[in-house]
Amino acid sequence: MARFLKSREKVKGKMPGALIFQGEQRQPEVRLSCIRYNETHIEQFETDISGLDGLVIPDMVTWISVEGLHDTETIRKIGEKFDVASLALEDILNTDQRPRFFEDDDQLVIIMKSMAFDEKTKELHSDQVSLLLGANYLVSFQERTSNLWDDILYRLQKSKGRIRRVGSDYLAYALMDTLVDSYIINIESFGHTVESLEKELIEPEKHHAETIFRNKTEITFFRKNIRPVKEVVTRFEKTEVDFVSEKVRLYYLPDLADLATQAIDAIEIYYTMVADQLNIYNTNMNNKANDVMKVLTIFAAIFIPLTFIAGVYGTNFEYVPELTYKYSYFLMWGVMIIVAGAMLAYFRRKHWF
Amino acid sequence: MARFLKSREKVKGKMPGALIFQGEQRQPEVRLSCIRYNETHIEQFETDISGLDGLVIPDMVTWISVEGLHDTETIRKIGEKFDVASLALEDILNTDQRPRFFEDDDQLVIIMKSMAFDEKTKELHSDQVSLLLGANYLVSFQERTSNLWDDILYRLQKSKGRIRRVGSDYLAYALMDTLVDSYIINIESFGHTVESLEKELIEPEKHHAETIFRNKTEITFFRKNIRPVKEVVTRFEKTEVDFVSEKVRLYYLPDLADLATQAIDAIEIYYTMVADQLNIYNTNMNNKANDVMKVLTIFAAIFIPLTFIAGVYGTNFEYVPELTYKYSYFLMWGVMIIVAGAMLAYFRRKHWF
Amino acid sequence: MARFLKSREKVKGKMPGALIFQGEQRQPEVRLSCIRYNETHIEQFETDISGLDGLVIPDMVTWISVEGLHDTETIRKIGEKFDVASLALEDILNTDQRPRFFEDDDQLVIIMKSMAFDEKTKELHSDQVSLLLGANYLVSFQERTSNLWDDILYRLQKSKGRIRRVGSDYLAYALMDTLVDSYIINIESFGHTVESLEKELIEPEKHHAETIFRNKTEITFFRKNIRPVKEVVTRFEKTEVDFVSEKVRLYYLPDLADLATQAIDAIEIYYTMVADQLNIYNTNMNNKANDVMKVLTIFAAIFIPLTFIAGVYGTNFEYVPELTYKYSYFLMWGVMIIVAGAMLAYFRRKHWF
Amino acid sequence: MARFLKSREKVKGKMPGALIFQGEQRQPEVRLSCIRYNETHIEQFETDISGLDGLVIPDMVTWISVEGLHDTETIRKIGEKFDVASLALEDILNTDQRPRFFEDDDQLVIIMKSMAFDEKTKELHSDQVSLLLGANYLVSFQERTSNLWDDILYRLQKSKGRIRRVGSDYLAYALMDTLVDSYIINIESFGHTVESLEKELIEPEKHHAETIFRNKTEITFFRKNIRPVKEVVTRFEKTEVDFVSEKVRLYYLPDLADLATQAIDAIEIYYTMVADQLNIYNTNMNNKANDVMKVLTIFAAIFIPLTFIAGVYGTNFEYVPELTYKYSYFLMWGVMIIVAGAMLAYFRRKHWF
Amino acid sequence: MARFLKSREKVKGKMPGALIFQGEQRQPEVRLSCIRYNETHIEQFETDISGLDGLVIPDMVTWISVEGLHDTETIRKIGEKFDVASLALEDILNTDQRPRFFEDDDQLVIIMKSMAFDEKTKELHSDQVSLLLGANYLVSFQERTSNLWDDILYRLQKSKGRIRRVGSDYLAYALMDTLVDSYIINIESFGHTVESLEKELIEPEKHHAETIFRNKTEITFFRKNIRPVKEVVTRFEKTEVDFVSEKVRLYYLPDLADLATQAIDAIEIYYTMVADQLNIYNTNMNNKANDVMKVLTIFAAIFIPLTFIAGVYGTNFEYVPELTYKYSYFLMWGVMIIVAGAMLAYFRRKHWF
Repeated sequence: MARFLKSREKVKGKMPGALIFQGEQRQPEVRLSCIRYNETHIEQFETDISGLDGLVIPDMVTWISVEGLHDTETIRKIGEKFDVASLALEDILNTDQRPRFFEDDDQLVIIMKSMAFDEKTKELHSDQVSLLLGANYLVSFQERTSNLWDDILYRLQKSKGRIRRVGSDYLAYALMDTLVDSYIINIESFGHTVESLEKELIEPEKHHAETIFRNKTEITFFRKNIRPVKEVVTRFEKTEVDFVSEKVRLYYLPDLADLATQAIDAIEIYYTMVADQLNIYNTNMNNKANDVMKVLTIFAAIFIPLTFIAGVYGTNFEYVPELTYKYSYFLMWGVMIIVAGAMLAYFRRKHWF
Repeated sequence: MARFLKSREKVKGKMPGALIFQGEQRQPEVRLSCIRYNETHIEQFETDISGLDGLVIPDMVTWISVEGLHDTETIRKIGEKFDVASLALEDILNTDQRPRFFEDDDQLVIIMKSMAFDEKTKELHSDQVSLLLGANYLVSFQERTSNLWDDILYRLQKSKGRIRRVGSDYLAYALMDTLVDSYIINIESFGHTVESLEKELIEPEKHHAETIFRNKTEITFFRKNIRPVKEVVTRFEKTEVDFVSEKVRLYYLPDLADLATQAIDAIEIYYTMVADQLNIYNTNMNNKANDVMKVLTIFAAIFIPLTFIAGVYGTNFEYVPELTYKYSYFLMWGVMIIVAGAMLAYFRRKHWF
Repeated sequence: MARFLKSREKVKGKMPGALIFQGEQRQPEVRLSCIRYNETHIEQFETDISGLDGLVIPDMVTWISVEGLHDTETIRKIGEKFDVASLALEDILNTDQRPRFFEDDDQLVIIMKSMAFDEKTKELHSDQVSLLLGANYLVSFQERTSNLWDDILYRLQKSKGRIRRVGSDYLAYALMDTLVDSYIINIESFGHTVESLEKELIEPEKHHAETIFRNKTEITFFRKNIRPVKEVVTRFEKTEVDFVSEKVRLYYLPDLADLATQAIDAIEIYYTMVADQLNIYNTNMNNKANDVMKVLTIFAAIFIPLTFIAGVYGTNFEYVPELTYKYSYFLMWGVMIIVAGAMLAYFRRKHWF
Repeated sequence: MARFLKSREKVKGKMPGALIFQGEQRQPEVRLSCIRYNETHIEQFETDISGLDGLVIPDMVTWISVEGLHDTETIRKIGEKFDVASLALEDILNTDQRPRFFEDDDQLVIIMKSMAFDEKTKELHSDQVSLLLGANYLVSFQERTSNLWDDILYRLQKSKGRIRRVGSDYLAYALMDTLVDSYIINIESFGHTVESLEKELIEPEKHHAETIFRNKTEITFFRKNIRPVKEVVTRFEKTEVDFVSEKVRLYYLPDLADLATQAIDAIEIYYTMVADQLNIYNTNMNNKANDVMKVLTIFAAIFIPLTFIAGVYGTNFEYVPELTYKYSYFLMWGVMIIVAGAMLAYFRRKHWF
Repeated sequence: MARFLKSREKVKGKMPGALIFQGEQRQPEVRLSCIRYNETHIEQFETDISGLDGLVIPDMVTWISVEGLHDTETIRKIGEKFDVASLALEDILNTDQRPRFFEDDDQLVIIMKSMAFDEKTKELHSDQVSLLLGANYLVSFQERTSNLWDDILYRLQKSKGRIRRVGSDYLAYALMDTLVDSYIINIESFGHTVESLEKELIEPEKHHAETIFRNKTEITFFRKNIRPVKEVVTRFEKTEVDFVSEKVRLYYLPDLADLATQAIDAIEIYYTMVADQLNIYNTNMNNKANDVMKVLTIFAAIFIPLTFIAGVYGTNFEYVPELTYKYSYFLMWGVMIIVAGAMLAYFRRKHWF
């Protein structure tokens, strides 16, 4: 299957708004966990679809984390409970969405990607992460269980920083900030791989070309998923829903936009570096080929004349005066050594070896 | 004929607004089929030009599908019945239009392309699809009969989803959405072709270059027809006619614009991939050429000195002391084997083979 | 002389606004022909400079066609009669202007290029075409007599379409539309030339490089003259003079802008195609060079070892046991054939021939 | 010293606004010449720093031309007399400024470059030209005496055109127009050099590469100095000082902006042309290398088999039946000629020679 | 570690706003020095964290220079004293920030980079420099002690220029101006290195490729740190805090923006130059390879036919008529010399040597 496009076949001709999970099933069942907190209280528990009724209560922020998206029915029910627009719900399920921002009367849907570069296998994985943000609740959708937000959980539990004192809008910001931070960490990790190649390219091998092109593909993949994030943040900044505080809009989100710009800048720098590495590879391969040709030329240019001289005295003419002279043979060797020496001196002066 | 430009010769100097079918006749006769529906009733029938009078009635949405554009007279009559601006009608007939949006007082004309990539022949076909949208009617024009919108027909008949409860504006959106969905499916299909080439390029053959350049041309063709769609949708969003509901303008069309962006992003990714494949091809071809040269150099560098040695003892000098020594011949072989072995060791150390 | 820049030497230091014809004289004398029409009457006649007085009368549209620009004095007089701004008149005479739009209180000056690609000589010619548009008159300036607008003349005479019922603004639109149509026809014609090269490049010859670079130059020339047309049309759309009707501004000119965009798109597609052809050329030339090297390598690698074997038995050592064995010679042949066969098999497996 | 950046060392850490001449001294002493004119009177005289008091009088336009900038003290005094902002004065002296526009309450400072391409030495020289424009005076600063504006002087003296009837704003426009005209003349002149290279590249020599890269550097230099001019003119158009008439702002300056665009377009065209020439050079160099390899291959492929045949009959086997047959030698020649002929025929068919 | 990205690992999952020093410790301890001045008085002293209370007094400008950022606690305390937003303080400590501008109610934070190119080691170093600007104070943060602003100190002490007469806003401008000036000096210095390479490339060595790619990386680094400065200045110009005077906003900052543009222009020019140098390198390397091949071809083409001739007369046919003719041997030499001479003449005519 085409890597950069998950199949739309399933959706073709379906009513826009029909719910179809476009992606691979990545874990056995959908898991719903819930955290409810305010400045003074916090409670954390697992739940299921039936437990969603009455879950969101005033004066507390409720964060429901949905892990696993393949069970369309469950997702549909969650959508119903939270009165999510069907198009938005479709986008949450279609894990091939580009990052986007979706605004309804009293809800925001934010779709982003988690990126994980595995430094061992040199493979880049990406899952879709969606946030459904309401006045005092946030539902996060992930394709599978991850420890992406463990630090935020920890801070919530320990009541560190301002996170317990502020609303769901700040929680959304914190989750997105963690996500973008993880982009930068992964780009850095990818950057190691790219930079470590640099030294190897002084002695290029054929397989390096493949590595370079694979790196280029990875960067394209990074870029595709990270570039639209800035637009998402910008649209978030301009939202008109009233539960996003001015503090978050004018203070935290611009900082997040800057962080996203930093990620994009880093990607562009590595893009240039990979393109340069291809140039280095080709230049060095070319230089190697030239070295091969020099060896050929040196051998040919030295021995071909000598072989010619030997050939001349291998002729069977009845009268070849040199043949009868006693020291001719040694003279021939002398001439040969002089010729070879002259050639070598010439090539040395030309810096051929 | 130039592929990327259908002939304008026919139009040259004609009055702008004269109706000329610019395209090839793709089916024997123009076919008119009609669907009329509202939330409770639906009727479907074939008709002809005379049947158009009184076809559009209040309280029902009328969708007339015109398949086949070569019969200018019929198209002109349809244009008259629906009071279509002559320039717009000209554009509907000129099947070389780039996608565009045309707004009149109480009508919209939307011109787009259908794209079909045939995975067997690796050929990309494109037909022009035009929509004429009025308050409670929609006339679709296609170059030939297709099953592009069969699913929408099905949904209309079965009254699935919201399609029967809403107006002609939503119908237009649904048709366009299906079209853009088909772009993505076809880009995906094309993507298979591109990606499957990647592996073959490890052992590049001459004919691969042609394939790569053909793929590049196909992408240019995709791009030319898909890129303007986003602009079309954006202008549709901003229409001032009153029969396009706010729901469609602010909710469905932005989603469609995002889908179009996704299609364009995918094209750009494949464009980069094809450009990279050309680099891979050239790099690998170069490597192959270097291998050929290494073989040449190894053979020459090993045998040329040996031949020289043999040549020396083929000379007919009267006095060559080595010739009379009994084991000279075997000694010569010994020297030769040592020289050849040394050369081989040298080349091995240089990783030439 | 530099092709892409006609000499400014003549103008240097002259008062801006001085009238100098910058171009080559292309026909013996300036020709003035005139058409005056309204919905019911039409008259057509040749005239001279003295006949211009009182030529423009109310209730009729007067189109004066000036063919030949070298007689500065005549042009200056025309300028005086129509009260043309001196800078605008200077631009009309300087045939190296890029397309531009010039707005005065009650006059518009539109400068464009006619383009003609000669498919036989593969040469691209360009003349400057200027339109001076007033409330009920239009003066067109061309460098020489052409049949560019014959169809419009025909339609005027036969009163076909709306042209006789509307004003000078529509006439200007019709002339510009014909011009842009002719661009597309010429790009198409040029496209034939470009596309027909594609097949030849499978067996590239040296001279193809020149053709490719010439085509690239032609495209640059097309681009230079066509790209600014869209801007011209856009500024025409926004004109504030009152004799350009809303119909023309909001309906016909946007259509013309779309046509210009189509022309520019086509140019860009051919630009990419030519750039690709250079790649194809270089790739195929490279492949040819590799083939040459393969031939060399095959011959050298086969015969150099064989020659070495023969050389060994050409040595004059007194004791070479093989020499005395009766079938040695035939054995040598046998070994040689086996070596040669093995080499051939190896090269065949490497797909070298 | 770096060519593209004159030293900032002198300025580093100096108070912004301190006056330092950054450039080379190009003539022995600063020369001040003055022209004072209105529609009826004109007077022209040389002056010195003390003569500046009371020089500017109402009802006349005063043009003071300062030639030579190295005497900072003189420039500072001029600055004082005309009450020039210190930053602006610093920019006038720093001859490495990019073209810029500086607006004060009642003064404008315009910094541009004069460009001179010497067709003999193929060198491009550039001086800085600054204009200080006030209500009824204009001070022009040049690095050395030049005849750049001789024609304008002539027109002032002879009272040709409108120049004597209008204000200092028009004078500034006329000076800038002359400057931009001179750009186009120099680009044209440079263009000759570039275009004349095209033919030589059919038989490329090594030194052509240097020429091409030098031309590319010159274009970069042209571009750097000309591109910002359009911005300068645009900002001039939008000035709010009241002594720039609407006529100049809305009529002359847009024309100048168009001229600047024309210059930039020309530069871009030559930029593309030079880039193409590098491609042509490399392509043709490659083709030459391929020709060399063909010669090698032809010689090797013909003579290596022949030498092998001769080698076979040079062996000293006791029993080689062919040796005793009388016509063997001639037969060998026959075989050799056939082999060589076959090879030649093969290479001919492959179009190798 | 990846060069272009300092580790974000430390920050991951931390509360946004937590203070972590992201960088290497570059000097033993944090140093705080202070200057307090107005038009008539100036005092300068070292201080520590406790000395900050009551340091800022009305009617004087207080500049506190913090050198060394690794002691987070100290920085946090400074932040507290000046009531700095925690996000801004985090950015000051994270020395991998891209240049940015941060506006609070009554404070501005400006983050920039100092750049130092070491002409000996050819290495480019960069430190982060942050300015915290309030109504009558400025706190500058640097990673280590430097003499970057010594000239400004000197001017403050000697009361040179306007600096003592104006507020903290002008001081901030002066510091930024010095910084951008130092960019240009360093780009110039880097430019020497780049330009001096040009001549060496006429005789390219393998190691030049590395130098070129290293230069390209340096430029990317320059660009990354300098490009955003223009945006910073532009946002500074638009600040709404009331302690930045109109003089600074409308007069000094635009000048600074122009200086930044000049720096960026210079970088782009060197970027192009480096890219061209890679082309020159490859072109010249190619030319060298072609020379090698010519030597090979000349030797092979001359001696291979001669060796063949000798081989023919080394055959042992019983009847070879030429062998018995007395002058055959000398004739053979004659023929050989003619053949060799003809070949040489041919190659000379082809300009091969």
